[in-house]
Amino acid sequence: MSGAPWVLRSLLFVPGNRPDMIAKAGRYGADALILDLEDGVAPDEKARARQVVAGALDAGVPGSPIVFLRVNGSGSGLLAWDLREAFRPGAAALCLPKCETPEAVLTLDASLQALESQHRLPRGGIRILPMIESARGVVQAAAIAGSHARVCGLAFGAEDYTADLGVARTRQGAELAYPRAAVSVAARAAGVDAVDGIYADFRDADGLRADTGAARALGYTGKMLIHPAQVAPVHAAFAPEAAEVEQARRIVAAFEAAEARGSGIVVVDGAMVDRPVVLRARRTLAIASRPAAGRERD
Amino acid sequence: MSGAPWVLRSLLFVPGNRPDMIAKAGRYGADALILDLEDGVAPDEKARARQVVAGALDAGVPGSPIVFLRVNGSGSGLLAWDLREAFRPGAAALCLPKCETPEAVLTLDASLQALESQHRLPRGGIRILPMIESARGVVQAAAIAGSHARVCGLAFGAEDYTADLGVARTRQGAELAYPRAAVSVAARAAGVDAVDGIYADFRDADGLRADTGAARALGYTGKMLIHPAQVAPVHAAFAPEAAEVEQARRIVAAFEAAEARGSGIVVVDGAMVDRPVVLRARRTLAIASRPAAGRERD
Amino acid sequence: MSGAPWVLRSLLFVPGNRPDMIAKAGRYGADALILDLEDGVAPDEKARARQVVAGALDAGVPGSPIVFLRVNGSGSGLLAWDLREAFRPGAAALCLPKCETPEAVLTLDASLQALESQHRLPRGGIRILPMIESARGVVQAAAIAGSHARVCGLAFGAEDYTADLGVARTRQGAELAYPRAAVSVAARAAGVDAVDGIYADFRDADGLRADTGAARALGYTGKMLIHPAQVAPVHAAFAPEAAEVEQARRIVAAFEAAEARGSGIVVVDGAMVDRPVVLRARRTLAIASRPAAGRERD
Repeated sequence: MSGAPWVLRSLLFVPGNRPDMIAKAGRYGADALILDLEDGVAPDEKARARQVVAGALDAGVPGSPIVFLRVNGSGSGLLAWDLREAFRPGAAALCLPKCETPEAVLTLDASLQALESQHRLPRGGIRILPMIESARGVVQAAAIAGSHARVCGLAFGAEDYTADLGVARTRQGAELAYPRAAVSVAARAAGVDAVDGIYADFRDADGLRADTGAARALGYTGKMLIHPAQVAPVHAAFAPEAAEVEQARRIVAAFEAAEARGSGIVVVDGAMVDRPVVLRARRTLAIASRPAAGRERD
Repeated sequence: MSGAPWVLRSLLFVPGNRPDMIAKAGRYGADALILDLEDGVAPDEKARARQVVAGALDAGVPGSPIVFLRVNGSGSGLLAWDLREAFRPGAAALCLPKCETPEAVLTLDASLQALESQHRLPRGGIRILPMIESARGVVQAAAIAGSHARVCGLAFGAEDYTADLGVARTRQGAELAYPRAAVSVAARAAGVDAVDGIYADFRDADGLRADTGAARALGYTGKMLIHPAQVAPVHAAFAPEAAEVEQARRIVAAFEAAEARGSGIVVVDGAMVDRPVVLRARRTLAIASRPAAGRERD
Repeated sequence: MSGAPWVLRSLLFVPGNRPDMIAKAGRYGADALILDLEDGVAPDEKARARQVVAGALDAGVPGSPIVFLRVNGSGSGLLAWDLREAFRPGAAALCLPKCETPEAVLTLDASLQALESQHRLPRGGIRILPMIESARGVVQAAAIAGSHARVCGLAFGAEDYTADLGVARTRQGAELAYPRAAVSVAARAAGVDAVDGIYADFRDADGLRADTGAARALGYTGKMLIHPAQVAPVHAAFAPEAAEVEQARRIVAAFEAAEARGSGIVVVDGAMVDRPVVLRARRTLAIASRPAAGRERD
């Protein structure tokens, strides 16, 4: 229960074959960057993207965000190549697209053990964010979320989900009500982050705010972004209320007092408080201590 | 297929440390009372509440409702103490809060076997009503409902559920649409009652009626209450239509006629009727034979 | 990956005891007929219906639709009799009502193996369309869809589902939102068709169109019908957009070109295309090549 909590409100995609964009991406205040080797990179650019990403990770991504690497999916035939040529220790986690089974996570874990050994990294340290983007993924979401300790969240990819089912995206989003809710509940049931997919129209900040608010109501804790301008509205939509921050302060104080006197029982406002509540309170304080909006200078 | 059906439209909470409220609670016509040792009782009142509840059960709760005992949850460290000091044969069932796994039910079953042996009660007679109040509980709801023959229903606790996910309650309730529906379907799939959680604003009878109607539409068969004034609106919201009662009468008559002539095949209105339909018809008639509203005298 | 794709947009029920209706049913352009031995036939007509259906299958149903046989459910005591007396090789598939477990499918599979042996049919050729019509069926839907290679889809029966839960059907349909979405996702996760249940008011074409559109948005690929006039609106509601047809053409062309040069990698519009996408493209082209509306002559 120590160390800074891992806060993932905003995960900004950056194409892996764009060194210029990678160099600037850390400026915008997103909690994490996702260096993309998958759908954001055309097939004939994949090889070059791996080299660009490896170089950027070796040099260090400016701004110190958490860095994810989105590899190509388990069925693509490209995943082993991505890991071998693009992975470097600067990547904290892998984003695994089109994940449909717990076995896909376990197979990736085996590859990561080898990478950790090769790069002399702590064993089990590289995290995995599976993306749920199909009907099969939705049915398996709870099993995927609980499949391995490396899994740090589930991301719901609405674009690919609707393509998988062959249904149209609508403004009202009735086509997403069930899978979007089910993925969030599956993630939170496993005690990991629930990350909502992108909002494609990056010029529509109001729409983004509404969409992020709807995701938050379903239990989502973060959102994937395609443009730096989306950082600020998303952080605003995930900002805790003042009363929430105040209560989190009381919870953490009571926990530290209990710890100091060697007791495991924490009582706040007349009610016992258990460990997950303390963890959530720490996350709330960590969010509250950051600048509310992303830095949008360019 | 004999004995009065177990009807649970209304389950009224009573704090376990309030002997005055327990003494009067049977007057209001609720189908069941839940003597509460958990969230309705402050930590420093728990010990006294156990004694009050034990005394009330020994003396017999006036009005002959079904009596539930809400113990503290499996992870609280208080459950064994609750069972040892507060349980008495007058309690027909236990309400198990914050239930997240089938194993929690099986562990409680083992304790109940010991209690039944100690109090010379019929083995397996004490029922269990698990409360689903977290994302993990929702994911496990079907497994929990089917985990043991003692399970008589699932209750959905929206207050704790939203707190678990850290989301706000809204009037429209989009945050609850999926878990509330999933818990009801999980319960009904196991052939047990689906009990909706409380409606907190006990002065708002219209809101309570709408909320109970929405729960009924999702398959809920009962609701937890925090105030005697909530009994009548809830019974009204769960009242069967006249046509439903009439059909239930025909079904039960056809079943009894078939039974009398030694046949297992029941035909009503030209269609074969199976056992669950007969059980539901009996429940409908049992409800119809009760006063439509709770007695609200004080 | 050859042979005409199996397209099931419209499945028209015909009572098994009505030879006159069976003789005409192939005229209306429905993709499939369901010769009904279950709820559409009164108990004292079941025996005659089996003979009528067997005779019609022996003679061949005019119009060459896909022919389903809806037998009575696993718990009815009538299923073995239905298979023995009504099944003939002309039936391509069985519709299994009130399906609640994967075991019900496996038991039917064993009977079908015997029938295939008896009629010298290819082993495993008779398909099964389980109907999900209860809370238990919804909970088991994914397991049922994936239980056997014979399963060609899941059908959601809203009428029996609401009766099973004892809830009223409403215009808005909040009572169906979760189960209807969950059944579709379960089917599509297994890679099989999702078939929505009937729209009872066959005079209300606008209502049928809206209902079918809502089903399509949830991932449904077909709908059960009770009247020939429902064929045209349903085909219209499932019609692919022009852009979809155009893209499907490009995908199939790219696939065939890749196959011709002995390559397994298909690239369309700069993105790799995998096998399920090719299968869906073929289905789209198959639909586009049919007359858009059913022939409504009588």
